[in-house]
Amino acid sequence: MKISELVEGVLAGRRRELARLISMIENEDPAAAEALSLIYKHTGHAHIIGITGPPGSGKSTIVTRLTGEYRKRGKTVGIIAVDPSSPFSGGALLGDRIRMQEHSLDKGVFVRSMGSRGHLGGIARATSDVVRAIDASGKDIIMVETVGAGQSEVEIIDIAHTVIVTDVPGSGDDIQAIKAGIMEIADIFVVNKKDLPGADKKVVEINAMLDLDQNMGMWRPPIVLTNARTGEGIPELADKIEEHMKYLIESGTLEKKGLQRSREELEQLMEYRLTQELLTHLQNSPEYESAIRKIAKRDDDPYTVAQRLIAEFLAEYTQREGE
Amino acid sequence: MKISELVEGVLAGRRRELARLISMIENEDPAAAEALSLIYKHTGHAHIIGITGPPGSGKSTIVTRLTGEYRKRGKTVGIIAVDPSSPFSGGALLGDRIRMQEHSLDKGVFVRSMGSRGHLGGIARATSDVVRAIDASGKDIIMVETVGAGQSEVEIIDIAHTVIVTDVPGSGDDIQAIKAGIMEIADIFVVNKKDLPGADKKVVEINAMLDLDQNMGMWRPPIVLTNARTGEGIPELADKIEEHMKYLIESGTLEKKGLQRSREELEQLMEYRLTQELLTHLQNSPEYESAIRKIAKRDDDPYTVAQRLIAEFLAEYTQREGE
Repeated sequence: MKISELVEGVLAGRRRELARLISMIENEDPAAAEALSLIYKHTGHAHIIGITGPPGSGKSTIVTRLTGEYRKRGKTVGIIAVDPSSPFSGGALLGDRIRMQEHSLDKGVFVRSMGSRGHLGGIARATSDVVRAIDASGKDIIMVETVGAGQSEVEIIDIAHTVIVTDVPGSGDDIQAIKAGIMEIADIFVVNKKDLPGADKKVVEINAMLDLDQNMGMWRPPIVLTNARTGEGIPELADKIEEHMKYLIESGTLEKKGLQRSREELEQLMEYRLTQELLTHLQNSPEYESAIRKIAKRDDDPYTVAQRLIAEFLAEYTQREGE
Repeated sequence: MKISELVEGVLAGRRRELARLISMIENEDPAAAEALSLIYKHTGHAHIIGITGPPGSGKSTIVTRLTGEYRKRGKTVGIIAVDPSSPFSGGALLGDRIRMQEHSLDKGVFVRSMGSRGHLGGIARATSDVVRAIDASGKDIIMVETVGAGQSEVEIIDIAHTVIVTDVPGSGDDIQAIKAGIMEIADIFVVNKKDLPGADKKVVEINAMLDLDQNMGMWRPPIVLTNARTGEGIPELADKIEEHMKYLIESGTLEKKGLQRSREELEQLMEYRLTQELLTHLQNSPEYESAIRKIAKRDDDPYTVAQRLIAEFLAEYTQREGE
């Protein structure tokens, strides 16, 4: 398939071409960059929602319920489940197939799982590109759900307009400590499984934490109580998400974030490509391997060698250009 | 202080110069790279031990007890406590001061806490350089303790010869899921608080997991039961750590890992420095800000702009060189 046909298919919202482009992004196919460059001006319409929180807090069920709610409201939905600890990518994680069964025949819903395999440029960058592809395909809402703990949850703020942090009543202190880093990125808190004892206490805890936040802007993250299993609280959650977007637009935050995001993305892209060019250059350099051996033996030091190799790379480039 | 004096002081094992160099590394002082380059050939002697595990599993107490054990065995010790979620760096985290009180007057022990502040090049790279500085100062054993969950724990394998993963009896399923990623990097397991009910069950669980491991080499990670509060099991742990180093040397793994580490470090250094050079160049470019605005407005796309700016950077470099 030609790139122009692929792009046309994605822009027309065709599932097959979209899935194909996403696989190309995941496999670092050079043609993916060309396609992404062509679709870029058709992006920026979707509301991108990040959903994160500790394992067992019901993220997947919330995403499924929100999807139903959005479909009722006439909106199309894209879902990306990111699990950096999983080696599996593709549209076919068993759990996703089961939980999304009710939406599997709905053309207004597109689901994709992403694992860690094959993302040489990092899962965050791949996720950002996949979000862009789904955005260009015309989905109104894109939900990015991260599984597991750590870095990936924090990176979600770079991509999402609205970050939802989920929690459950009665989670212990151990979990609490782990979550500290992700509480700060929340635009909306969800206390799920509100039927469990301790839901009110959890709300009090989150409010106490918010009262202490010195850096809070005009938006105080609301706390929504849900029972995702029964669907209770889901329409309220969808309302709060919409309110947050309204706030982002009216306060000028959306525009400011857009500029910041463009800057970061440009820098990351340049860093990645420049490094790729350098490494390609080094692969053909006979002294590279012996330089590494010398460093390991302490006959040379990595700081000096790095400087020398960069200078050689730039000089080589100069020669090539001058020919 | 001249760099040569600083380096001399570090190599002589003087605490003041070592602390100074570490602060320079943390502040990204350009002179730090020069000092690191000079001390590099005096490194590679310390046994570097990484200690990680969920909050509450007693990592700090284990580190304190191991320090006492190593001192008894006549070895000098460096300790780095890495907490990416803490904005505080320096030698003076209150908790560390308290727990290390018994070693505070001992010149054979050097303790340092590292937070996330001021590490433009990433906390992993800063930690690696700090380990190197302590190594050059002549410490026999360097323990790197990571606090919190996520990326930093996985990066510890790049630095450490021996990785210890701590756990406690009866930690729940939520924690279990989070830990999945760090179980795989263990060279030695410690089940701490062995007096708590469920310690034997925890050993059975870890063994069951190890039985399933397809990628295990010649070294099957031993499981050491400890009660760090009383010191039980600590001499056995120190023995297992020594056994692991013996295995690394005899199997050739130490040499192989050293080469791999040298390669990774060289690549990271080059990537970082090349990017710094590019960003410095762009800061002086008048079109850079307008290019970012165009991307945010979808008037241009980041993929094309990245390519153009890299080409311009390299061309600029060519001109400068030709002058």
